[in-house]
Amino acid sequence: MIAELISTGTELLLGQICNSNAQYLAVRLAELGINVFFQTTVGDNPIRMEQVFRQALYRSDIVITTGGLGPTMGDITKIVSARAFGRTLVLHEQSWARIRAYFEQRGYCISDNNIRQAMMPQGAIVLHNNRGTAPGVILEKGGKLIINLPGPPHEMQGMFEDEVVPYLVNRFQLHNVIRSRVLHCTGIGESTLEEEIKELLKQQHNPTIALLVRDGEILIRITACSSDIETADRLLDTVEHQVRLKLGDYIYGVNDDTLAKVIGDLLSASNYTVACAESCTGGMISSYLTDVPGSSRYFMQGIVSYSNEAKIQQLGVNNSTIQQFGAVSEETAREMAEGIRKIATADFAIATTGIAGPGGASEGKPVGLVFVGLATPEKLIVRQFQFQGERDFIRKNTVKAALEMLRRSLLAMRT
Amino acid sequence: MIAELISTGTELLLGQICNSNAQYLAVRLAELGINVFFQTTVGDNPIRMEQVFRQALYRSDIVITTGGLGPTMGDITKIVSARAFGRTLVLHEQSWARIRAYFEQRGYCISDNNIRQAMMPQGAIVLHNNRGTAPGVILEKGGKLIINLPGPPHEMQGMFEDEVVPYLVNRFQLHNVIRSRVLHCTGIGESTLEEEIKELLKQQHNPTIALLVRDGEILIRITACSSDIETADRLLDTVEHQVRLKLGDYIYGVNDDTLAKVIGDLLSASNYTVACAESCTGGMISSYLTDVPGSSRYFMQGIVSYSNEAKIQQLGVNNSTIQQFGAVSEETAREMAEGIRKIATADFAIATTGIAGPGGASEGKPVGLVFVGLATPEKLIVRQFQFQGERDFIRKNTVKAALEMLRRSLLAMRT
Repeated sequence: MIAELISTGTELLLGQICNSNAQYLAVRLAELGINVFFQTTVGDNPIRMEQVFRQALYRSDIVITTGGLGPTMGDITKIVSARAFGRTLVLHEQSWARIRAYFEQRGYCISDNNIRQAMMPQGAIVLHNNRGTAPGVILEKGGKLIINLPGPPHEMQGMFEDEVVPYLVNRFQLHNVIRSRVLHCTGIGESTLEEEIKELLKQQHNPTIALLVRDGEILIRITACSSDIETADRLLDTVEHQVRLKLGDYIYGVNDDTLAKVIGDLLSASNYTVACAESCTGGMISSYLTDVPGSSRYFMQGIVSYSNEAKIQQLGVNNSTIQQFGAVSEETAREMAEGIRKIATADFAIATTGIAGPGGASEGKPVGLVFVGLATPEKLIVRQFQFQGERDFIRKNTVKAALEMLRRSLLAMRT
Repeated sequence: MIAELISTGTELLLGQICNSNAQYLAVRLAELGINVFFQTTVGDNPIRMEQVFRQALYRSDIVITTGGLGPTMGDITKIVSARAFGRTLVLHEQSWARIRAYFEQRGYCISDNNIRQAMMPQGAIVLHNNRGTAPGVILEKGGKLIINLPGPPHEMQGMFEDEVVPYLVNRFQLHNVIRSRVLHCTGIGESTLEEEIKELLKQQHNPTIALLVRDGEILIRITACSSDIETADRLLDTVEHQVRLKLGDYIYGVNDDTLAKVIGDLLSASNYTVACAESCTGGMISSYLTDVPGSSRYFMQGIVSYSNEAKIQQLGVNNSTIQQFGAVSEETAREMAEGIRKIATADFAIATTGIAGPGGASEGKPVGLVFVGLATPEKLIVRQFQFQGERDFIRKNTVKAALEMLRRSLLAMRT
């Protein structure tokens, strides 16, 4: 079973967006045991798109397209798909009713163009879109399949999981499974990590082990192939165990885990609460922590004390501390952490103060200088960092460092 | 002049990384006036890779590959490129000396494999790699070019800018430029927007106009082609003006503008300040607003009042209001906005309270119900929203709605 991905859209050809849909589908198809040998991106040009479709149908069994299902004249994916199989487009009443209802519910005006989204190739299976207006399509002819999915990633993913996966599993009696597991690492460099698990990397066969870096985070991807999910998962368990023996707490989570989620689990398990006082991170730490469902159980309060006045009035930082040492200093970070812990009556408190740039540097305090304070029921720590990079990089790395300090301290309290 | 991008590597086919190289090259080639009609991803399989190379050479003038220049047996891009033009690989002494020096300088052990990186197709122009060990290649035959670039993005980008761009400009006397401008819209649906600018879309030729949706935001991309940058920009100016006549304030920004940046400019221009009290958005609004360099001039303070206690103690919301109407209510949103505006002594204040889900719904208060309060020097508005989707979607749309309310109110104050 060979699948091929075709991403349509001029915005991809011009590089205005990165093709995350191809990545998502590639991962999921591999997990289903379906090989992907080619991924092609083509613009909204009917001749070139048709050329790509015909070639893909020739060399692959399943052609999955993303994009071009919108209501505008440039959205031609369904037209080209229908033509490749010699079909015409007809109105799909049920989809049209759904689209009208979608607009009505939201109080939006519907325009004549929207009916295009309800025009479907004859004989198509229509895929319902739970998250938008564009329905998808499955078309079959002579054992070859074309599947049209919408371009916006959350619509595409929802439709793929809800409609396409069950269809493929049933249609092809899929029993070869490829299962992957990703271990998230923090606080260790790539080459040191590779050195630690060198022997495992050398021995690898099934499961395979790959190191990858994504958004500045090191991931270890373990992939097993087997005839059934249970066996594949047992293979993964064994290798995960071996990796964990080498890396211990450098691994903070698995698969979709985030630092914030793992911290949330640790806090919940011990009935601890947390609060934040943020200066240079401007609310990002609070935002990450509260991104976790159920975080209201342990997240007490956040204060974004961007100005000195806010630090003094809201957090009780001493004016003299700021005068003597500056707002970006170990002393201020310490008083911010103490202050927010007390005000919010939280068990743990994080405080950040730093120079995210590009402006704001001064003698002895360059852009990237950051102090992170952590107050726990037992102690108060302040760590100093010097990040190199742009504003966004400095802010994100401050968040990461602060969350890692909190995680380590929660782990230490547990034992 | 038509270029085609070929990305090689099993990690792309398996979706372990997103293809940011294709995006980078697409943007840069467009800026150089070189059209890209196709992007293909293929694995490290010699037969399939050769098939893709031959097709690309048939339909395009320049074939640019990324990846597969490493020292392992799986790195076959140069071999396949050489074969496509009937060349063999020979040792390039200068590259071999550079690679050895690179390893020596860093105290690394060199292995026998590394010599592969110095094997080059006969007659190739060798491209120096300032940031790694893999040299690149330019091969030419019968007016067709193959350019091999390394896979790691920072190596690829460095080599492209330092070596490939000057080569292409000189070789093809590039004087065609393609310039793009993106207008960001908010507060209007895609099909309504298309209806508004229907006539412009129909007439389009040069510049072209395209609508796209990214992260739930509608973008209008205007692309002009000309012999020089000034003329292209004048063409863009004219069409931008025509679009603005139709859409007015639905357009909030251009190119890299974000709502937060535009709001920052409006606040700075009028010397106004802002503060936030966030419940369901958990710090995201503060984080977005402070993501803008220089935001400390106008951003006073943020409070993430996740708990009822924080709403009462920090913001001065009446306990009776929460008891009577609930924490997620128009009344609470109003008192939160009033409270934070007063405490932070800010001119404008935003407050959010809602049910981001998946838990927390109750009788008459479903997941997705959100109230956004906006306090200005003149008035206090609360708007109610009912979002459909997952936690992240609801939070992000709340942020967007709140920022748009603030922007509209700043625009209104200005006139």
